[in-house]
Amino acid sequence: MKGITIQEMKLGDSASVTKTVTETDVYLFAGITGDLNPAHVNQVEAEKGMFGQRIAHGMLSAGFVSAVLGMYLPGPGTIYMSQELKFTKPVLIGDTVTATATVVEMVPEKNRVKLETVCTNQRGETVLKGFAMVMPPKA
Amino acid sequence: MKGITIQEMKLGDSASVTKTVTETDVYLFAGITGDLNPAHVNQVEAEKGMFGQRIAHGMLSAGFVSAVLGMYLPGPGTIYMSQELKFTKPVLIGDTVTATATVVEMVPEKNRVKLETVCTNQRGETVLKGFAMVMPPKA
Amino acid sequence: MKGITIQEMKLGDSASVTKTVTETDVYLFAGITGDLNPAHVNQVEAEKGMFGQRIAHGMLSAGFVSAVLGMYLPGPGTIYMSQELKFTKPVLIGDTVTATATVVEMVPEKNRVKLETVCTNQRGETVLKGFAMVMPPKA
Amino acid sequence: MKGITIQEMKLGDSASVTKTVTETDVYLFAGITGDLNPAHVNQVEAEKGMFGQRIAHGMLSAGFVSAVLGMYLPGPGTIYMSQELKFTKPVLIGDTVTATATVVEMVPEKNRVKLETVCTNQRGETVLKGFAMVMPPKA
Repeated sequence: MKGITIQEMKLGDSASVTKTVTETDVYLFAGITGDLNPAHVNQVEAEKGMFGQRIAHGMLSAGFVSAVLGMYLPGPGTIYMSQELKFTKPVLIGDTVTATATVVEMVPEKNRVKLETVCTNQRGETVLKGFAMVMPPKA
Repeated sequence: MKGITIQEMKLGDSASVTKTVTETDVYLFAGITGDLNPAHVNQVEAEKGMFGQRIAHGMLSAGFVSAVLGMYLPGPGTIYMSQELKFTKPVLIGDTVTATATVVEMVPEKNRVKLETVCTNQRGETVLKGFAMVMPPKA
Repeated sequence: MKGITIQEMKLGDSASVTKTVTETDVYLFAGITGDLNPAHVNQVEAEKGMFGQRIAHGMLSAGFVSAVLGMYLPGPGTIYMSQELKFTKPVLIGDTVTATATVVEMVPEKNRVKLETVCTNQRGETVLKGFAMVMPPKA
Repeated sequence: MKGITIQEMKLGDSASVTKTVTETDVYLFAGITGDLNPAHVNQVEAEKGMFGQRIAHGMLSAGFVSAVLGMYLPGPGTIYMSQELKFTKPVLIGDTVTATATVVEMVPEKNRVKLETVCTNQRGETVLKGFAMVMPPKA
């Protein structure tokens, strides 16, 4: 139930989660957030656009980053302070996204950890990258 | 169907969306992303934690930011390039979150716009803040 | 699996379905249809409005009418031709809505049936009324 | 946050929303309303029926009409009084439906507006038509 403390962590530690993104994920995400942008829910418009089909919300991939941090590294008890996100490629419906977080900086006196956060698709292409700052659970 | 071009935009333009965040939103978001962190879905653990109750995912509020950008400012046709997020306060189930985006920088020759993005709750407290970089739709 | 034919039906026949409308129903309905009107999903705005709280979408009650017709009277195999709807009172989250359809006119040579369709809440108040025209399944 | 008043409106004004209807939409709609008619959720039966496949609920398209009225024209603050619906063609899973509302009559002394409401599919075929009567928000 409790995640990894900063004392139990070392630079380079990493964890990841993977999920195939379905139309259902995209439609539920649209409904929850109210982001019914045609790029996500209008196949006719999306076909005319630059990707030729409906794409997933970038923030859905960001949600996978949140999942890695909150579930595995550091895991339960973590305070999520900030996140930088660069959306580098679209995620298409049916793509399999792997979100990976890697410890790149630790400030034990402030209990702060910086992680590199990257999402890749099934072809190994980076679809999202950036950095997270978190406070791991205390011992 | 098409959003606002950089030519139709000026510094200080802003738009917002508002939604009361429900348990349903949090549970669906958890299911979609796989972020079943006890802070979000375990009432027993959450009661022992620093907020005394289950809280919404920070990325759910980020999803409202995405909704403003993709639906209203600049709106359909926008390319979402990057987003910085600072999670400044928890969003509790039942809180009403307003996400507001305000144009703070425009680079017409690259068709890039920077927006300040802020989420506040019904008490006017900032729960999330940061900046988005987007490419508005072209004329 | 098959519904009631016009030959098996008589004037005054009726059927109903009942459901307590939850916040989940309203939020999912909002997400599916894109109708995130503040009356449905913004508690702060809704409190200032004429009903003092969030209300369900009128079309959600209309969906219960569709359920009676498609599931029970006439049931599977029915062709739904038209529907008139008057929204007479708001449905609040937590209200228990009963949708009732009653046969009021039969045109056997065209295989058409007119039903009075009414939704009431747990206090017996009518929240929606109107008429449906359907073609029951054939023998 | 507030929609268009009758003073700000003129005959012929129109607005629309578009969404590609997915299996997810149809299944969630079935779950919410209880309309699990085999035409919507039983592929085996649906293949034997007149459309050869599962179709969306007519009331789901009616929900898009509600979305246009409640979100855009007149928008937030609108009281939905009544709606007539004719279901003229089935909506298949994967169809892209556009709901359009057009102001056809205004009665300023009663603050009532009549709108023609039409849903079309990606082939331009009308799948639903009728009229809505609403009270726009007051100034």
